[in-house]
Amino acid sequence: MRNYNFSAGPAALPVPVLEQVAREMLELPGAGASIMEISHRSKKFEEVIAHAENGIRSLLGLPEEFHVLFLQGGASLQFAMAPMNMLAGSKKADYIITGAWGQKAIKDAQKYGAARVAATTKESNFSRLPESLDLDSGAEFVHFTSNETIQGVQWPQEPQTNGVPLICDASSDILSRPIDVAKYGLIYAGAQKNIGPSGVTVVILRDDLLQKCASDLPPMLDYRVQVDNKSLYNTPNTFGVYVIGLVCDYLQSQGGLAGMQARNEEKARLLYDAIDSTDFYTGHAASNCRSRMNVTWRLPSEELEKRFIEEAKAQGMVELKGHRSVGGLRASIYNAFPREGVVALVEFMKEFERKTG
Amino acid sequence: MRNYNFSAGPAALPVPVLEQVAREMLELPGAGASIMEISHRSKKFEEVIAHAENGIRSLLGLPEEFHVLFLQGGASLQFAMAPMNMLAGSKKADYIITGAWGQKAIKDAQKYGAARVAATTKESNFSRLPESLDLDSGAEFVHFTSNETIQGVQWPQEPQTNGVPLICDASSDILSRPIDVAKYGLIYAGAQKNIGPSGVTVVILRDDLLQKCASDLPPMLDYRVQVDNKSLYNTPNTFGVYVIGLVCDYLQSQGGLAGMQARNEEKARLLYDAIDSTDFYTGHAASNCRSRMNVTWRLPSEELEKRFIEEAKAQGMVELKGHRSVGGLRASIYNAFPREGVVALVEFMKEFERKTG
Repeated sequence: MRNYNFSAGPAALPVPVLEQVAREMLELPGAGASIMEISHRSKKFEEVIAHAENGIRSLLGLPEEFHVLFLQGGASLQFAMAPMNMLAGSKKADYIITGAWGQKAIKDAQKYGAARVAATTKESNFSRLPESLDLDSGAEFVHFTSNETIQGVQWPQEPQTNGVPLICDASSDILSRPIDVAKYGLIYAGAQKNIGPSGVTVVILRDDLLQKCASDLPPMLDYRVQVDNKSLYNTPNTFGVYVIGLVCDYLQSQGGLAGMQARNEEKARLLYDAIDSTDFYTGHAASNCRSRMNVTWRLPSEELEKRFIEEAKAQGMVELKGHRSVGGLRASIYNAFPREGVVALVEFMKEFERKTG
Repeated sequence: MRNYNFSAGPAALPVPVLEQVAREMLELPGAGASIMEISHRSKKFEEVIAHAENGIRSLLGLPEEFHVLFLQGGASLQFAMAPMNMLAGSKKADYIITGAWGQKAIKDAQKYGAARVAATTKESNFSRLPESLDLDSGAEFVHFTSNETIQGVQWPQEPQTNGVPLICDASSDILSRPIDVAKYGLIYAGAQKNIGPSGVTVVILRDDLLQKCASDLPPMLDYRVQVDNKSLYNTPNTFGVYVIGLVCDYLQSQGGLAGMQARNEEKARLLYDAIDSTDFYTGHAASNCRSRMNVTWRLPSEELEKRFIEEAKAQGMVELKGHRSVGGLRASIYNAFPREGVVALVEFMKEFERKTG
């Protein structure tokens, strides 16, 4: 039996996508072989990667000036790759730190250039957004993390940067809602939360930023090489790219990003309403930046939290334990997580409070 | 209908493995979710990655002093990562160049340290092995490419280095035959030819070399960080690791690496015998270094080669076109390529010569 899987990532995928992958595993239609067995230089794979790219372009409404790449190494490799490409020489960048991933991003960036903290909410244990930003108008870019998976803190809209391009680690909310792409110079995201399996990194890069990138980097770490070769400098994660294309079709069938936003907001509201309706549960994130993807909350004691996790698991609701740095509970409810799973959790929360509260 | 798929990579996988992947796609036994949906920090994935690691250890007979990692970025990223870790300071390395991949490897290495050509067979269009090596006894390592996929040139056994550890790009012959692991300090290989899907890189690193690695590299590019975190510094290609584990089981069931060697040698012999039995076909590689993985040969004219490829394709034998730098034909017959496909190709070769020769 399939569980309600609240994993923070790799996370739930749409069942129709999994069914199609299973059906096509021995023979991708028209290929005479599994998607895992065909050359990345074949016509068939050209179709597969174009399908995935077009899916992302269409969902986000990306203009031609953006390149779409399918790389490897996750956001963690982009933490180094973005500044290697964009901060060589004496260039400067501002980083806004609202959680654990932003902290990792700036640490790598400081190896490659003048990366500076424009704001941090560390003193609140990353439970809120910064009240103001100390921005350098000479910065090449402003980096932010649109959704901090561990803390459950999400920007309701982009930070204001007076025209300096945003670089966004969108690993945990990409394709979960419409965004204003004109504000972005670079968006990168590991696929494994909202749009596919782990092992593929989607990189969306505006051409004017590409033109200013460093050269003479190792080819795998050089955005120019990756763009010039359309993600095929070496063998990409062909299976992962295929799954992303199927997930994009699924998202389109659900009303595109506006449809996903409505569904994701409703799922999150059900959970936050349950948290807010009682003092038994306490949300971690401030209400103006509560994540629609990762809902984080506490119970009155660690003992009760442990019992909650165990009893929920016994009812097929798994992966609810919060990250150790925040504690408590975390329910990750990305794109593919079903509404009925949220309803089941809310029922369980009420019953658990009745029994123990 | 499944074709006979002679792709140089991503390449044929064992049918029983594909069938198991399809069967378990919606629900990995005991997980309540797809392998793509479970956390890389879950107990279930710990089992999956341990299974893949133990499979590789057992097949190769790896002693404890070797670490086994599952990284991303393919051999192409290892071209940079290995020297970043191992040549920092004023360390030196020798590279033996027997084809296109070796050329790429040294180009990246020279960005990070004193990487020197100990031998090259470029003047023969990489059709043979070097007659002698100009080795520096002070080198940290000697790098070689055990099988050059494009040219179809394979080392029948390791080059002699007087005790200097070998670093091997084994992307296109890993787990295709037994090797003398004691000679190696580092083996790296993209999985997509012999042991799994693309998007996972297997890295096998001896502990004494790890201890001499540079520090303060970006964590994703730092062997120490990857070893300390047992490949889980960030989210690995979880699906790819799972498939590698299943392929290892399959290889074990076929008699392990000795069994694979016997099968692979027989497949290659059938093809080389067909090439040698007539002047109509001409092998590219010298007979003492003919690859058991990629058989490269020419026909009397490019026109005939084109016709050969088209007519073979019409009979369900696909991906036979050689790389443009060598021309002609290439049949890649890795671990999972079935003997009956080789027999079918040999029959076709005879018939094609009879018709056109």
